[in-house]
Amino acid sequence: MEIEDTFAEAFPMYIGRYLVTASTRRWALASAQEMKGLGVSATLGPGEAGIEREVTIEESPDHRPGYLLNVGHREKKELNYWLIARIRKGVLPTPTTSAFDAMPKEMVQYYVDVKDTPIQLFGDGYEELVEREGRAVYKIPRMDGFCYIETRFGVARGIAGGNFLILGESQGSALMAAEVAVDAMKEVPYTFNPCAGGIAASGTKVGGRRYKDAVATTNDPYCPTIKDRVEESKIPRGVNCVYEVFINGLDLTSVEKAMKVGIRAATTVGGVKKISAGNYGGNLGKILIPLAKILEMH
Amino acid sequence: MEIEDTFAEAFPMYIGRYLVTASTRRWALASAQEMKGLGVSATLGPGEAGIEREVTIEESPDHRPGYLLNVGHREKKELNYWLIARIRKGVLPTPTTSAFDAMPKEMVQYYVDVKDTPIQLFGDGYEELVEREGRAVYKIPRMDGFCYIETRFGVARGIAGGNFLILGESQGSALMAAEVAVDAMKEVPYTFNPCAGGIAASGTKVGGRRYKDAVATTNDPYCPTIKDRVEESKIPRGVNCVYEVFINGLDLTSVEKAMKVGIRAATTVGGVKKISAGNYGGNLGKILIPLAKILEMH
Amino acid sequence: MEIEDTFAEAFPMYIGRYLVTASTRRWALASAQEMKGLGVSATLGPGEAGIEREVTIEESPDHRPGYLLNVGHREKKELNYWLIARIRKGVLPTPTTSAFDAMPKEMVQYYVDVKDTPIQLFGDGYEELVEREGRAVYKIPRMDGFCYIETRFGVARGIAGGNFLILGESQGSALMAAEVAVDAMKEVPYTFNPCAGGIAASGTKVGGRRYKDAVATTNDPYCPTIKDRVEESKIPRGVNCVYEVFINGLDLTSVEKAMKVGIRAATTVGGVKKISAGNYGGNLGKILIPLAKILEMH
Amino acid sequence: MEIEDTFAEAFPMYIGRYLVTASTRRWALASAQEMKGLGVSATLGPGEAGIEREVTIEESPDHRPGYLLNVGHREKKELNYWLIARIRKGVLPTPTTSAFDAMPKEMVQYYVDVKDTPIQLFGDGYEELVEREGRAVYKIPRMDGFCYIETRFGVARGIAGGNFLILGESQGSALMAAEVAVDAMKEVPYTFNPCAGGIAASGTKVGGRRYKDAVATTNDPYCPTIKDRVEESKIPRGVNCVYEVFINGLDLTSVEKAMKVGIRAATTVGGVKKISAGNYGGNLGKILIPLAKILEMH
Repeated sequence: MEIEDTFAEAFPMYIGRYLVTASTRRWALASAQEMKGLGVSATLGPGEAGIEREVTIEESPDHRPGYLLNVGHREKKELNYWLIARIRKGVLPTPTTSAFDAMPKEMVQYYVDVKDTPIQLFGDGYEELVEREGRAVYKIPRMDGFCYIETRFGVARGIAGGNFLILGESQGSALMAAEVAVDAMKEVPYTFNPCAGGIAASGTKVGGRRYKDAVATTNDPYCPTIKDRVEESKIPRGVNCVYEVFINGLDLTSVEKAMKVGIRAATTVGGVKKISAGNYGGNLGKILIPLAKILEMH
Repeated sequence: MEIEDTFAEAFPMYIGRYLVTASTRRWALASAQEMKGLGVSATLGPGEAGIEREVTIEESPDHRPGYLLNVGHREKKELNYWLIARIRKGVLPTPTTSAFDAMPKEMVQYYVDVKDTPIQLFGDGYEELVEREGRAVYKIPRMDGFCYIETRFGVARGIAGGNFLILGESQGSALMAAEVAVDAMKEVPYTFNPCAGGIAASGTKVGGRRYKDAVATTNDPYCPTIKDRVEESKIPRGVNCVYEVFINGLDLTSVEKAMKVGIRAATTVGGVKKISAGNYGGNLGKILIPLAKILEMH
Repeated sequence: MEIEDTFAEAFPMYIGRYLVTASTRRWALASAQEMKGLGVSATLGPGEAGIEREVTIEESPDHRPGYLLNVGHREKKELNYWLIARIRKGVLPTPTTSAFDAMPKEMVQYYVDVKDTPIQLFGDGYEELVEREGRAVYKIPRMDGFCYIETRFGVARGIAGGNFLILGESQGSALMAAEVAVDAMKEVPYTFNPCAGGIAASGTKVGGRRYKDAVATTNDPYCPTIKDRVEESKIPRGVNCVYEVFINGLDLTSVEKAMKVGIRAATTVGGVKKISAGNYGGNLGKILIPLAKILEMH
Repeated sequence: MEIEDTFAEAFPMYIGRYLVTASTRRWALASAQEMKGLGVSATLGPGEAGIEREVTIEESPDHRPGYLLNVGHREKKELNYWLIARIRKGVLPTPTTSAFDAMPKEMVQYYVDVKDTPIQLFGDGYEELVEREGRAVYKIPRMDGFCYIETRFGVARGIAGGNFLILGESQGSALMAAEVAVDAMKEVPYTFNPCAGGIAASGTKVGGRRYKDAVATTNDPYCPTIKDRVEESKIPRGVNCVYEVFINGLDLTSVEKAMKVGIRAATTVGGVKKISAGNYGGNLGKILIPLAKILEMH
């Protein structure tokens, strides 16, 4: 099993991190899943989103079951818009829910203010500004009671695009290795995985060879099914399937730690032939994460 | 238990209906949930979306497990954009998936063409146009094999905003009645429920009383917690919680049938005091659905 | 990919088939999962059990969401005991549930009577015998209302031990093939899969080589990790993992159909090297199911 | 909202606590659910069982995702039998699983030895005794690799039958309160809930009024639907539904803490009229838990 001497090419990303709570765990999860949706990494649409983890009642500011969400976008303006939109569409309408900021204070670059957004305006003057557990929150009446939304949400300058590639002898072995990796990486704090089920089948390259104007196209060097049609295929003999595992996080150290944990886990699975990473030759991303370096981390 | 002599006020909506399949049911579901996300009814963002139902292997064009998705928007241009975006973000990246049109031929108003969208361009010239079970599909190489995406997706002129309100003596009774209704309505073909978990806590009115420029604000006449502050509260004595169940569909008959099934189911649950419906006095919507009429339907 | 010219060795089994319903689908599922538990094929304990499928409200005798359960045992007396015990422990205590017989009339060999069992006696004289949709049912008071349990449950002389083995080059490929097979087999009526997640890792042989008194021990010829220590290993070169998929059913035709559907599905998955079947040389089971025969079935 | 001045009547129970791990979290969960099955409190069958909580990879002895199971029985011999049977039927056959003792050393009363049980004998002499992270474990070959099972499982003298009753004005409010309580109680260590979905609809009394020989029959004083037929009904005006929440645990303090947490959570839900507890007048159980006392606990 080879670990290629290469690097992941990551990018800075604006990231918000917040908590949705509800009367019961299943309603908190329904809300979190709705907000996570349309959050897979891609070059269009409402940015990235991922559920970080379950939050216990003991940890929660309103002593109810909850989930930590992270939402990200490379553009500040877009992040600000979609952070509010995800809460507006995923928290406000969902039975018994509330939402609180969960960004560690020391990581806050700036705050998104809820005032004058469709969340605060929803209250139509019936909303009140109250204090809960030391937080300033809007208490907004809705048909099933009150929805509490913190007045501002912290945004960090985090990292997107941490990743590695799993090259397997079959689809089953690559997929199982990716699942094992994703389960392990979920335990690393301050990171989130934007993909549906945590795994990406559609690796991309920047731009296109044939479709010059495309923003991103299939990562043909890593497509085993067309390796005979691709000039510089990177598919070794015996490899029939590749999956990519992405990881975003609030800081580089957390992303590196998650990558390390994930790669270690993936390599315990039979049929994995090689680990590599997605990059654009270092031309695009500002943050290079060499696999060799992170595997030496403590 | 009273059923108010009122009507739901619905709207025409452009709706696409398609099928995502995968090697296993759980990957088809992961993809469907990702695409359903950010699809709750609201006045901002990427429109509405809902999972209609599970599709058996026997029904499926590629003989794999699948789920039927419906996506909708009041604006044609927006629908066309987000239909492609949901497939681009929810199907293309997800392990082993493919997507096929599922709009009944007789309901098609027009087709959204996949050509020259980020889906077809993703292939970067490696994609092929092939035929599968009488359908024209793009066979697009990605790292785990090929993703098959039909070349066009039919759009119907459907109905949004079918709804009814459940007024309960407690949050628990209103919520249970709404859950019972949502389970029953899922069996009505050609309809979908855009809400997270199927239930809306945040009923809205058009515009605002105090915030004049707001597009939509809380439906204060139906908020029990502020009934003493609202001039024209519609909350009867003994009601402490209200939930709204929305239903969209490809045609009016299906929406009416789902509403009927849902109301009948809700009224079997203890503690439900009244059924009403959300409307704007008939000023806004073009389609009025009287509760009395649909409850007489066969 | 080779399909070995061998046969599954199956056995007659007493099987009960019934329906649990509840106010909401999730409570019906909670009940069904509780009753399915401790139902994996084994030589000890409370026999076998499996969820066949979801039942729609339209199909259900009390117009509520439900699930079809099958429970089986080779011994009639044991089946009679555990059928009642599973309903007593899984239906009666679970919120809002009821249970109805679902055995097709033409397959009934005999009925298990609920009279004088801990289910009927639970009513302590407050239970009533009533009629619902042409069925005789006990209406038993419990703290959340009434639980309806049909007065008798039909038992068929069905088939257990239909099976096939998937030999894969890696754990991931064998597991994926088994999952694909299990998803496909779920659509075959009158069959159920007793394994947790549908897949068995612990194939058995009758008795033991070294532990002579053991009832069943590891199927060492099919354990790749010890192939060098086993005299008559059946593990071909390149195979590193084997999973077994079991299927029980109300009649032989249904079991054969499910096996065919499952094998066909499994062989679409990359990395599967061989399909075989578990048997005991024809010495034990009374029903031999040749793989060659079922793959020729229409 | 009244909390009745009464007590729960609990019993000593032999309890085993162990961990199932698997390559992925979903296979660990499939195994845990299978083992939890047929584990609802009742006077017949294989005793009680419950999933305590998820275990992280970091905590787990084999660095894989896992779940903590608790199994209990009032009779030592029965506990010993069913502890082994649940592992034999739920762990050994399930893909990629292993099982380890998780009983805190200071609570161990005695150990159940795996030697000469159907688990060790399954190995048929191919099993090896090895050491993993300071534990003595059997390394048992099965078709997908090795299954690791610790050589002995600690048993505590714990507590069963901790409970409280929720009397609600409707089924929905009582059920919601019970769900809120169950979610909260899940966070209390060393406790487990044996009911399907955590909630019991079928409260029992010891013996029967009319059916004198019955072991346990419906708790008729707490059945609202028959209150007019019951001489000493305990149903206050306005109560239409009762649910019971049971809790078992390794020691009395943990059970009391869980009861306190659960009662506090339940009473936050609208429509709850009264909290009581199930007891048999103190004649049967050896452990009386007064509600007043536990609500004063820190």
